[in-house]
Amino acid sequence: MLSKNTVKFIKSLQQKKFRKQENAFFVEGAKNVTELLLSDFTITHLLFTEKYLSDQQDLIDRSKGEKIKSSPKELKSLGIFSSNEQALAVASIKPNTSLEIRPGELVLALDDIRDPGNLGTIIRIADWYGIKKILLSPETADVYNPKVLHASMGSFSRLAFEYVDLNSKLRDSSVPIYGAFLEGISIHDFEGVPEGILLMGNESHGIREDLKNLVTQKLTIPGFGAAESLNVAVATAVLCDNLRRLSK
Amino acid sequence: MLSKNTVKFIKSLQQKKFRKQENAFFVEGAKNVTELLLSDFTITHLLFTEKYLSDQQDLIDRSKGEKIKSSPKELKSLGIFSSNEQALAVASIKPNTSLEIRPGELVLALDDIRDPGNLGTIIRIADWYGIKKILLSPETADVYNPKVLHASMGSFSRLAFEYVDLNSKLRDSSVPIYGAFLEGISIHDFEGVPEGILLMGNESHGIREDLKNLVTQKLTIPGFGAAESLNVAVATAVLCDNLRRLSK
Repeated sequence: MLSKNTVKFIKSLQQKKFRKQENAFFVEGAKNVTELLLSDFTITHLLFTEKYLSDQQDLIDRSKGEKIKSSPKELKSLGIFSSNEQALAVASIKPNTSLEIRPGELVLALDDIRDPGNLGTIIRIADWYGIKKILLSPETADVYNPKVLHASMGSFSRLAFEYVDLNSKLRDSSVPIYGAFLEGISIHDFEGVPEGILLMGNESHGIREDLKNLVTQKLTIPGFGAAESLNVAVATAVLCDNLRRLSK
Repeated sequence: MLSKNTVKFIKSLQQKKFRKQENAFFVEGAKNVTELLLSDFTITHLLFTEKYLSDQQDLIDRSKGEKIKSSPKELKSLGIFSSNEQALAVASIKPNTSLEIRPGELVLALDDIRDPGNLGTIIRIADWYGIKKILLSPETADVYNPKVLHASMGSFSRLAFEYVDLNSKLRDSSVPIYGAFLEGISIHDFEGVPEGILLMGNESHGIREDLKNLVTQKLTIPGFGAAESLNVAVATAVLCDNLRRLSK
């Protein structure tokens, strides 16, 4: 049975303030919940419908935390989805630890990416292109925002995140730092080793001034038409694809 | 002065039913309005604030249609934006004409792309990669939906669209038809002429069965991580980038 206190607790996690206070977050929908159950996150509550139970009996049995059979209507009332026929899970937020960037590794650094949908899509793209670590400026959207987690399609569970002052972190790093600029070398002509940090800037203002000087290789996505720019998530994907192509 | 009738008329255009009935649509915000004024669309109403007037006096002077000085508050009340300090324009919808696909040309075909944000982002990507024509299945979102126009960042004004039964259109075409599949040739290895139709399928179900057989070249975006798929707009961009790379 879903208690009033649990309802209140889960609903409060829609807000960053309460996620921080409770050190907890939730995910919704079969795909995200399944990925969470398969990850090393600590599950504290698992809410599931009859349908999810019949599909994922084993996963539910093996899960830790309080298990609560719920109706689709109850699940819908807790989250941001317009319908949720399957499941919702609450887990503990992982501590914000310092990520070491190893030689040969490609990581992302996100400077002031404000839109949760963009951040979630970027996490999914990173997971597609085998990126395991993302550095985020403190102004960037919260990874544990339900909209971010939804757009990431479960990929958030396979990546490590560090909210950090990018200027200090990048200044202290010895790996190449790539950034997208209008006056860089065309990514179609660039030949190099795809390792280091790919820095992506704010949706409207791009990479901020004090970080620009830290970029060791300016890259440009060649345009063939009249659009002035690409969406930041789309640009991240095109850059990752071109860099990964060099791994062959 | 903004009349009650004009307010009612513009607000009604948020709904497809009324856009169709009135053969009209609106765009919001400086960027989209400016692009619309620079295009060959027929403007019927131009609403602008003091700020837009001081920035774009010439464009306003040259514009056709009824010109109405408005407040940011009035503009906000008409559209879907949470704020609009600049402008809103109403224009006539262009007739849905049959698009001819010429040799050497790259065009997009969208099968059942339901999300307005995805469609708008794809239009912006097409414009970046020099694609001038988009074929859309009747189930695909409406190009003139305010959310689509917003996400397209003005790019919609430079492209031609045809809503059409894709099966007939593609069957009658003699150009190559590309589609993204899990079992295609890696786009990193593909060498060919980037001309023809790039077919993109529904967000959840991909390309529908009866269209699959019409694809002459199956392409795959190689993955390097664990994500199961990419967002359809992101995949469109990566495919376009890889095809345009072959133009060099």
